[in-house]
This record gives sequence, C-alpha cells and structure tokens, in this order.
Amino acid sequence: MTDFNEIFDRVKAASRVLAILSDDERSRAIEILARLVEENTDKLLEANAMDLSRMDKSNPLYDRLELTPSRIKSIAGDLRHVARLDCPAGEEIERRTLPNGILLRKIRVPFGVVGVVYEARPNVTFDVASLCIKSGNACVLKGGHDAENSNQAAIGLIHQALAEAGLPHDSVALLPSTHDATEALLNAVGKVDVCIPRGGRRLIDFVRDTARVPVIETGAGVVHMYFHSSAREAIARAVVDNAKTRRVSVCNALDSLLVDRELLPVIADWLSPLAEKGVELHADARALEALRSGGYPSHLLVAATDADRDREWMDMKMGVYTVDDVEEAIAHIDAHGSGHSESIVAEDKEAIEAFSSRVDAACVYVNLPTSFTDGGQFGLGAEIGISTQKLGPRGPMGLREITTYRYLLEGDGQTRP
Amino acid sequence: MTDFNEIFDRVKAASRVLAILSDDERSRAIEILARLVEENTDKLLEANAMDLSRMDKSNPLYDRLELTPSRIKSIAGDLRHVARLDCPAGEEIERRTLPNGILLRKIRVPFGVVGVVYEARPNVTFDVASLCIKSGNACVLKGGHDAENSNQAAIGLIHQALAEAGLPHDSVALLPSTHDATEALLNAVGKVDVCIPRGGRRLIDFVRDTARVPVIETGAGVVHMYFHSSAREAIARAVVDNAKTRRVSVCNALDSLLVDRELLPVIADWLSPLAEKGVELHADARALEALRSGGYPSHLLVAATDADRDREWMDMKMGVYTVDDVEEAIAHIDAHGSGHSESIVAEDKEAIEAFSSRVDAACVYVNLPTSFTDGGQFGLGAEIGISTQKLGPRGPMGLREITTYRYLLEGDGQTRP
Repeated sequence: MTDFNEIFDRVKAASRVLAILSDDERSRAIEILARLVEENTDKLLEANAMDLSRMDKSNPLYDRLELTPSRIKSIAGDLRHVARLDCPAGEEIERRTLPNGILLRKIRVPFGVVGVVYEARPNVTFDVASLCIKSGNACVLKGGHDAENSNQAAIGLIHQALAEAGLPHDSVALLPSTHDATEALLNAVGKVDVCIPRGGRRLIDFVRDTARVPVIETGAGVVHMYFHSSAREAIARAVVDNAKTRRVSVCNALDSLLVDRELLPVIADWLSPLAEKGVELHADARALEALRSGGYPSHLLVAATDADRDREWMDMKMGVYTVDDVEEAIAHIDAHGSGHSESIVAEDKEAIEAFSSRVDAACVYVNLPTSFTDGGQFGLGAEIGISTQKLGPRGPMGLREITTYRYLLEGDGQTRP
Repeated sequence: MTDFNEIFDRVKAASRVLAILSDDERSRAIEILARLVEENTDKLLEANAMDLSRMDKSNPLYDRLELTPSRIKSIAGDLRHVARLDCPAGEEIERRTLPNGILLRKIRVPFGVVGVVYEARPNVTFDVASLCIKSGNACVLKGGHDAENSNQAAIGLIHQALAEAGLPHDSVALLPSTHDATEALLNAVGKVDVCIPRGGRRLIDFVRDTARVPVIETGAGVVHMYFHSSAREAIARAVVDNAKTRRVSVCNALDSLLVDRELLPVIADWLSPLAEKGVELHADARALEALRSGGYPSHLLVAATDADRDREWMDMKMGVYTVDDVEEAIAHIDAHGSGHSESIVAEDKEAIEAFSSRVDAACVYVNLPTSFTDGGQFGLGAEIGISTQKLGPRGPMGLREITTYRYLLEGDGQTRP
C-alpha cells in the first residue's frame, strides 16, 4: 500500500525549498518543461492513445481526454506564457512602523502545498504544475483514472524538467488515481495547505464534504442574466447570445434568463439569434406564451420545471423566467444563484445600482455577457480555477490567488506592556 | 426540535439587508448596545450568577465565565471602540479599464453570514456580534452550555439594540448550546459563508474535522523563540521574559525556547527573570545540564519528553532545546510549529535572513517577543481571532479580515470572441 503521508512529507519538504528559490530558477523549469513537451509529443500521444482506447467515443469526456499534436503544441505555448508572467511571491503588500518603533511588513508568500483533484483532462496536469511552480508552491495532483497513462507520461516529463532545472523532484507529485489517494489527500491536515477540486458538481461536492484540509470550491455556476425593462435591444441581443452560445460547456455559460414582464412582447425577437443556433428554452408559463406567439420555434420550447431553476445546463438549453421588477430578479438570484456570475442588461440607473450593489456573486456584470469570467480576460495572466466561495480568493484565480501572506516584524527588544 | 435551517435562512436574509445599510446605521446599533449593556449591568450579573452557581470555583473556566461590574464596563467600552472604527466594507480595492473598454472594479464586501463556535466566555458574544455588525456581516453564534444564561441575557440586549436602531432582528442569532446546533451550523452549506471556532485545541479540531462550510482555524499556537549565537544579552533577557510570562494563557505565549549550543554556558543567567517568576523548564539533556550547572533552581528543572516538543503549555512552563545552528532551529520549527508566531533573537544578518525568509508562520519576529501577535498591537483596531491557516486571512484578524471581495464589471455590450 502506498504510504501517502510519506509522499506528503516529501512534498512539504520540497515546498520549503521551492519557496525560497528565485523566480528565474522556477521559471526555467517551466521553460524546460515546454521544450520537453514538444520533444516528446509522440510519447504523450502514445500514452494518451492507451487511455482513449479504454473509453467509448460517445462518452462526453472523450473530447476532454484527447490530446492531439495541436493541443500539445498549445500546452507548450501555455507553459511558456506562465513562465514569463510576473511572480507575485515576495511582494511587499504593506509596510508600517508601529508607534513603538517596530517595523511591520506584510509579505506575499506561496501557500506551500496545493492539492488539486481533477478528472479526465491531461492538460490540467501541466497547467496546475506550472502555475504552482511559478508561484512557489509545491503541489499534489490527483487525476482521473481515465487519464492515468496520459498523466503518467506528463509527470515523467515534469520530473525530468525539475531535475534538469535543479528543482526538488517532489515539487510536483502525482498520486495514484485511486479513491484511497483522494481520501488521503483530503485528510492531510498540516501537510496540504489548500485543496482545489477541478471538475463537475459531483466532484466538487465530494471534496467539500470530505475534506479536513481547507478547500476552495470552484467552478459550478448557475448563471443568470436579467433583462430590465430599460434594456437596450442591441446590447441585450448581443450579450445573451454571447453568454449562452459562445461555449456551452464552461462554467460561465448562461443558464437562466430573467425577463422583465414589460419585455415579453419582444422577447422572441430578441432571442432569435439563439433560435438560429437551436437553443432550447425552458420557460415559465408567461414566457412560454410570449415566446410561442412571438415566433420562437415551437420545437425548441419546453415548459420549465421547478428543478430547472437550479440547473447548470452545460448544453444548448436555457431557462427563461418572467419577473415583475429588479426586486424579483434579485430574489430569484438569491434563491437559485451559485455565487459565480450574474448580469443585468439595463439603462435605468436605479435598477443597475440595486442589482450591482445587492447581487451576491463573485462577478457581477452590467450590460455584459458572463463569458468574461475568466482569469485571462480579467488580466490575471492565467487561471487555476474560478472560486465560488467567499473564504480565500473569489472569482477567477491566477497566480496571486494561490498565495497567502506572512507578517514579518523587526525590532530591537521592544516588549509588550 | 429547533429548525436550524429556518434560522439560517432568516440570518441569510438579514445579511442581505445589513450589507447594504450605511456604516452609520450599523454603528448606531453598536452604540445603542453599549448603552444598554451599561443600563442592564444588574441583569447581566444576575444571569451570569446563575451560570457561575453551576460551576466549581476551582474550574479554570470559572474566571473566563465570570462577569463583574468592571468587566461589563469594559465590554461597553469595547463596543464603543468598535463602533468608531473605519468600516472596510465598500472599499474599492482595484479599478482597471480592460483593453476592450470594460471597467473592472474589485470591491470589498462582507462575507455574508459568519458562524462562531465558542466556549464559556460571555464577552465573546458582544465582541463577535459587534465586529460582525460593524463589518456588515450577519452572524450565528453558538456559545458554551456553561454560559447559557449569560448569553441569553446578552442576545436579549443585542436584539433590543438592533430593534432600536432599525436593523433586522436576525442580524445576530444565538443557537441553543446543544451539540445538534453545532452540527447544524457546521453543515449549513450555502447558508453560512465561513465558520470560526474560538476556544481550545479540542474545539478547533472538532470544528475543522466536522465542518462542510469553510472554516478559519484560529488560535492554537506552539510558539518558538530561537536564541542565535549572535543574540544580544539585553534583548534576549527582555523578550523571552515578555513572551513567556506576560500572560501564559494566551495563544501567543512562548512554548519552546531553542538555544544555540554556544549560548549554553550563559543560558541559566539569561533565563534568571523566568526563574524568579517560577517558570518550570522542560529541557533536553544538554540544556538541562547547562541550566543546572548555571544555577537555574533545580526544583524548576525537568527532563523534556518527546511530546513536550509539540506542547502548547498555557502555563508557567516552557521547553528548552539545544540546536547547533539556525538550520536546526528552522528544522525544529518546521517539525513542531503550528504556524502561529516564531521569533529569532540575533544580530547576525545571515541568520536573521535565513530565519525570517524560511520560517513558515503567520507572524515571524526578529528581536521581539511573540506577545505582539494581536489585532490591537498590529493596528487592526480590534480582533476576532488569530488565524493559523493559509486560506483566507492569516494571523490577527480585524474587521477587514472578515470581509471578501466582489468583481463588478461595467460595459456597453462588449462580447467575448
């Protein structure tokens, strides 16, 4: 049986070394990894083919699992991009001299050991490893069983890069893809500083409910857009289309549209771009009637159930619900939102003010699609996930969001009365 | 049976209202509470007397449970102090215009609902309620059974103050002091945004191990001080005395002294202020010999056990261990520290640099006692606890540390390619 605690202790020890290396030393390892990934494209494809051969092509995970020469090229590109970002660790966040003469500094430092539990996407292995190394964190990865061979090939290259760069081997550890390994990781109190699940709702819930180590909940989003009666048609048409259809499988994709009752007569027209793309609407009685009489294709209209209101569709489907005013829109989001991304389309200042000051979510948008909830779009340079909890980082997480801080106080023998 | 979910829903609803009130409105409730506390001193003492009558006077909790007229006066003073602090909620942390013209703002907001589980100290009820109200958070309090009557009297005054100030009654809820209530609070996913345990090691471990809501671990500290061979005598004498004996029952009190072997000949002399106060030293073989031959009173000398190295003494006792150099000191702290507060006494620049860049703790001190780890001393104005974890706030937590942030993005119909 694998002695997980021994692995965690080695990673912790590596994290102490990694944290005090220079940014240049850490970045060099990532540059080397980018080169090794390109040089070993065939090896990665071979390992990936073994994984793919075990999966049915009709499985929706197949596409996520699959590596191709162009995807591998883009992994190498992403690695070089991360290597060249600014490193947040070491930054002085605050410097004050206290009345007693003590110099107090608040300094940004890596978390230490970051655990990541994920599913069938082998690119996540490179992604997380590079973001952690860059920010000075060691990491423990627990990938999905489906991607076992791909991940083994990836960690082989990562360890080769660490060795060539003179960084500790245990800066990145890949656990076996067993349930035991996940349990051990989630219970590694004092050894793993934070754990981030990357995957679907079930994985995230399991991690949150099981972990004794601190967790950052990520991803799952029941995302709303509210068309206020003052909405401008051109903006409404553009942003609802972009938010719903740009990519339906991502967490910032729109799930529920809240329509002010005054807009019911025009809603079928405003949603015509969605009709053209075949978006199926699950609408409440009033909206259904308006959509039908407005000419939204009837084979794309379904009566919404109560459960639809809490659904993250991940599909060319969307809920449409009628609200009387901004108050009802906010109440709907309070009841059914997941704190991810929420948007209002409106010109009325009071409605905008009410929505944007009161909706409780990581990202609140005015006259914009929720598709912008993304580390790259926010200018964070990279993204390790999108946090939907309030403790710790919230919203898109880049390098800075996987750091913490430390107080350093210097004096010459002052004592506390 | 109490319907806890219904309570949590009401507190959540109150938190939505509280968050958008002005700082003045919230502060007024705290000022009113201060007045009510003074006016109802007799009522509070009466309720407290009922609690005290159920506890043995020899119980170390007795002193923490006891309210006196002067303690009540000081509670009122603390409340007024909190009411007058600057409110961090609403602060604009960041403002950027993205290349596509979107205005991105990062705005500080309250967590929402803060849960606090604590033990027999009724002053914590006022303390937590005022800090939460001030920062715009609603809170759910779960006090100890021993303080039941005192806490009931306190929550009565808090609710009276909320009513007089026109704030929602459910801004502060006190749960029954049952185990069921704790379980419900720790499992209130989606309803309680963060939970903070305030109490001893056992309570903290229980909360961390049980909770499905995010937790901030607080308090427990195995605190070290390292005397490097270059330490100045006057500083060493002053800071070790202050760190160990100022108040032995607090989490920043010194637990283990690491002595460079070169200092063994003088250590008994340097620790003579501790001898005068009767501090019992649990020392390793080399230190024990040096202390004995240097004249530290032999009735205060004990051979240290392995378990002593992980002990938070909370008493006039301290471990003393010999180390060869700063490397061994850091390794000792890596193995036995709890990430709370660690101090080095040294003049040597390299030793200071090694210690202060590599010791992994919320607060690292140079030539200072660890007694300074305190929200008030750090200039935070108040303190709700001291975090020993890395996710979320670290070290002393004031008002700002019980807030999170939200991104607000405004545009005019931009879409993501």
